[in-house]
Amino acid sequence: MKPYAEMTKEELKELRKHLVAQYREMQGKDLRLDMSRGKPSLDQLDLSMGMMDVLSSEDDLTCEDGTDCRNYGVLDGIKEAKELIADMMEVNPDNVIIYGNSSLNVMYDAIARSYTNGVMGNTPWGKLDKVKFLCPVPGYDRHFAICEYFGMEMINVPMLPTGPDMDMVEDLVSKDPAIKGIWCVPKYSNPQGISYSDETVRRFARLKPAAPDFRIYWDNAYGVHHLYDHDQDHLVEILAECKRAGNPDLVYKFSSTSKISFPGSGIASFAASPNNLEDVMSQLRIQTIGHDKVNQLRHVRFFKNIHGIVEHMRKHAEILRPKFEAVDSILEKELGGLGIATWTKPKGGYFISFDSMEGCAKEIVARCKKAGVVMTNAGATYPYGKDPHDTNIRIAPTYPPLSDLILATELLALCTKLVTIDKLLAEMNGGTHVPEEHHEEV
Amino acid sequence: MKPYAEMTKEELKELRKHLVAQYREMQGKDLRLDMSRGKPSLDQLDLSMGMMDVLSSEDDLTCEDGTDCRNYGVLDGIKEAKELIADMMEVNPDNVIIYGNSSLNVMYDAIARSYTNGVMGNTPWGKLDKVKFLCPVPGYDRHFAICEYFGMEMINVPMLPTGPDMDMVEDLVSKDPAIKGIWCVPKYSNPQGISYSDETVRRFARLKPAAPDFRIYWDNAYGVHHLYDHDQDHLVEILAECKRAGNPDLVYKFSSTSKISFPGSGIASFAASPNNLEDVMSQLRIQTIGHDKVNQLRHVRFFKNIHGIVEHMRKHAEILRPKFEAVDSILEKELGGLGIATWTKPKGGYFISFDSMEGCAKEIVARCKKAGVVMTNAGATYPYGKDPHDTNIRIAPTYPPLSDLILATELLALCTKLVTIDKLLAEMNGGTHVPEEHHEEV
Repeated sequence: MKPYAEMTKEELKELRKHLVAQYREMQGKDLRLDMSRGKPSLDQLDLSMGMMDVLSSEDDLTCEDGTDCRNYGVLDGIKEAKELIADMMEVNPDNVIIYGNSSLNVMYDAIARSYTNGVMGNTPWGKLDKVKFLCPVPGYDRHFAICEYFGMEMINVPMLPTGPDMDMVEDLVSKDPAIKGIWCVPKYSNPQGISYSDETVRRFARLKPAAPDFRIYWDNAYGVHHLYDHDQDHLVEILAECKRAGNPDLVYKFSSTSKISFPGSGIASFAASPNNLEDVMSQLRIQTIGHDKVNQLRHVRFFKNIHGIVEHMRKHAEILRPKFEAVDSILEKELGGLGIATWTKPKGGYFISFDSMEGCAKEIVARCKKAGVVMTNAGATYPYGKDPHDTNIRIAPTYPPLSDLILATELLALCTKLVTIDKLLAEMNGGTHVPEEHHEEV
Repeated sequence: MKPYAEMTKEELKELRKHLVAQYREMQGKDLRLDMSRGKPSLDQLDLSMGMMDVLSSEDDLTCEDGTDCRNYGVLDGIKEAKELIADMMEVNPDNVIIYGNSSLNVMYDAIARSYTNGVMGNTPWGKLDKVKFLCPVPGYDRHFAICEYFGMEMINVPMLPTGPDMDMVEDLVSKDPAIKGIWCVPKYSNPQGISYSDETVRRFARLKPAAPDFRIYWDNAYGVHHLYDHDQDHLVEILAECKRAGNPDLVYKFSSTSKISFPGSGIASFAASPNNLEDVMSQLRIQTIGHDKVNQLRHVRFFKNIHGIVEHMRKHAEILRPKFEAVDSILEKELGGLGIATWTKPKGGYFISFDSMEGCAKEIVARCKKAGVVMTNAGATYPYGKDPHDTNIRIAPTYPPLSDLILATELLALCTKLVTIDKLLAEMNGGTHVPEEHHEEV
């Protein structure tokens, strides 16, 4: 098939007829598929069922240091959980706080605390006229939602293959003291699956922000979530790098076991410099008496150590790899060479980022929905849900069974072709859009 | 023994000699006891060990409505957990949100949300010059710590045998729009074990606050924590009462299973009107993806229903009752009729409130500590840790084994006698205080 751009109006119209027929056939299948969220599949969840057996009424729920996990106490996490998670986060256990079940909640709390009580003695953000946050785009919708809830001004920073555009980041943060942070998913990023280059991490560690309370929000959600055994991305460890650069307090690092054990029933964690930890602890001891130590112990008894986590993630990868590869091979087969879409080929994480031609993404997602496949809303990967070029679609291939995923991806490719042809035909008609009635036809 | 007030200087001096000898003997026992926090004892924790067996890898972790508890989803709690906890809270399940492991955290979040985003459309408290909170005293130190962390002005409201002084509460809240809330532990209050009278609850429900965003923070921490089977306090249900009074949005109700199952590994809950719930949910969906549903399911499978909770609480009571009775009988035996202390006799909850003569509490706690018994800091039951009369000591009899508790209470009685005598002697000496060296002697 030749690129659409090289096709004549008649060729496009002819092709459209075939595609409409295919779309009707798809609609006839009465699909109800969900590719919208980064949820593990049922067989991934089954991998962790052994976790339900490691603590029984016959077991001693006592830590190595004698702490009874069943009672109150221990604000920052039991020692063995800190060790396990520190190994996963590639930091010293002394730099780690173990939280509850959600790293998103930890990030929310960090922002809320900055608003009400300030960062390390600086003015609470709630007392400032304006607070701005840098948002690498496309990015994670829930990060942006936190900013929006608190009324921050979000500034888009383009993602490059090496990570956020660091020229722009350096320039902005050095000039504007209202910029208080940046969201980063540094490894297998959401949605592209990009891992930041060594240079990007080093430049992050060497930022000279105008605001003393600027922090890098380093959401390492997919730190151990590789698809391959030997072809893995490696990230320079940011906490150590900041220390080396003389900026030890510059970063907040977040992680969780949500996509390792059970989402919603995992353990979340935070790592930072001693100064930052002290600041955070001054809030934490007011906010709660402590997190769920029994669940911390459950994770330690199940995984035992970082090697246990690595082996466990290998099992996840065996389930996920065929799905990521299926999406890529279908897109390549259906859209390769047409010049109407690009997509990423991540080596880990939970998403594939898909870019259509300008002005097509919303319509593609809408057509998928009409045929029974729910995608993440187009625009969701941008602050305020506004993709300025309307190109980006986040593909979440993990949850559906492989057979469903194949159908859903075929539908995505089909809808992409249809919407693109409609757009090209409209342009040939002098830029007038195809009327809505015409859409309904397909 | 006659009341100390009727003793001559010589009699007091003579008595003091005997008491000093007893104190030295106590010190010789090298005690290391903790009566400072309201923690369940080890045998209470053992009551819930069956909870570790109700979910195994052989079990289906699916809710009645088909929700897989192992995956993401369900922001406000699984249906069956809502039903269980709603029965415990005496409200409709539709009025309930199930949270994580800590009701303190839910209260903190409610305050933090009010600061950053306001209550139901009202000005965020962070934008106000002054925020005040009513604090019934003596009360729960962690409530007061939240107010202090957020920089509120706390106003002491005396506790009467019927609950907070409602004349004062009504007067204050109706006049001052800066007063945004009041802390209540309405049943078996911390530390007195007082349950609010029906009239008190009805007057609460009929408050006419000057501030539209005033809320009653109803921390029903000990709702099912009775010591006796037949002699139980009953509380008018506040949510229904507020609705009847035409003030449906006036109250936030909090609860948790912390002292039912495992503290730190229980489930916390929030109940309120539909308007308040909507307000809270608008934050919650930004703050987290959801709480630990597996733990919710674990609680449901273990307790089954409210009857299961009631039966379980009966077992707790069997362990706690002898402890509360031992404290009371020792205090009665040692201090009864001396006119130097009073204490409460709760029918439930986790604490006994002890009042010494004015200006003695700090010194009593300090002397207990020197003999190896840690009590809650004197003053802790008041905002800013300042008991204006220095009389109140919170006794937490639950954690130590009975034999330890007996020793600790004997020591408390002994220290009370000693400190009171020193105070009386000092007054007889013209009000000069006994010098610190003199203290050291004992």
